[in-house]
Amino acid sequence: MFVLPPTPLAPALPGIAHHTRASRANGLTQLSVWHQTLEPGAGTPHHRHDCDEIVLCIGGSGEVVSNGGTERFSAGSTLIFPADLYHTITNTGSSALEIIGVLAATPVVTRDESGTALPLPWAS
Amino acid sequence: MFVLPPTPLAPALPGIAHHTRASRANGLTQLSVWHQTLEPGAGTPHHRHDCDEIVLCIGGSGEVVSNGGTERFSAGSTLIFPADLYHTITNTGSSALEIIGVLAATPVVTRDESGTALPLPWAS
Repeated sequence: MFVLPPTPLAPALPGIAHHTRASRANGLTQLSVWHQTLEPGAGTPHHRHDCDEIVLCIGGSGEVVSNGGTERFSAGSTLIFPADLYHTITNTGSSALEIIGVLAATPVVTRDESGTALPLPWAS
Repeated sequence: MFVLPPTPLAPALPGIAHHTRASRANGLTQLSVWHQTLEPGAGTPHHRHDCDEIVLCIGGSGEVVSNGGTERFSAGSTLIFPADLYHTITNTGSSALEIIGVLAATPVVTRDESGTALPLPWAS
């Protein structure tokens, strides 16, 4: 089977629901795709991945802090994070922020500000 | 700048409009993201890539032929194509088919049924 049906997101972290749309569990070796919603006010920790990441904003609006700067984004925006670039994403709007994270690895290594690999509560 | 604004798609192939949401032009080395709409009846040639690909269906519905089988998909579906797997995507619905193609390379090598690399009319 190479077509997967829509699947509801599930609570994963405080204020964040998640579903892994595709990963090594589906026979891939180079890609993971994560689908997430963040409640108003919710955000990710400051983190980086060992691989390139692209985040597509599907709905809502937010703010991203990276590389010493802050930028706003909304539905239709594309966020670019080359490998190892630290970033934080926060929902600064009043409705759910819906994003799709595309990552060039499976599994995905995620590191905190000290460089320590973080365990993730979802498959990647 | 790490946030790119929404950008309209532009005609690229018969019945297919395209915008490259992210690629090496944005400082990436491992990922390309393509955004496309296919008019009713339009389809891709039978082709494969040298890298993993995931296609997210955003709107409309269609049919994918791959690995000797045919499957239908619609908004919310995820299509999985490990590297080198041939596939054809066709809009079998009556409205536009909107898809996002996620590819684990930049540039992306695309090959026809003879294995010959195809020139693409967009940046990857």
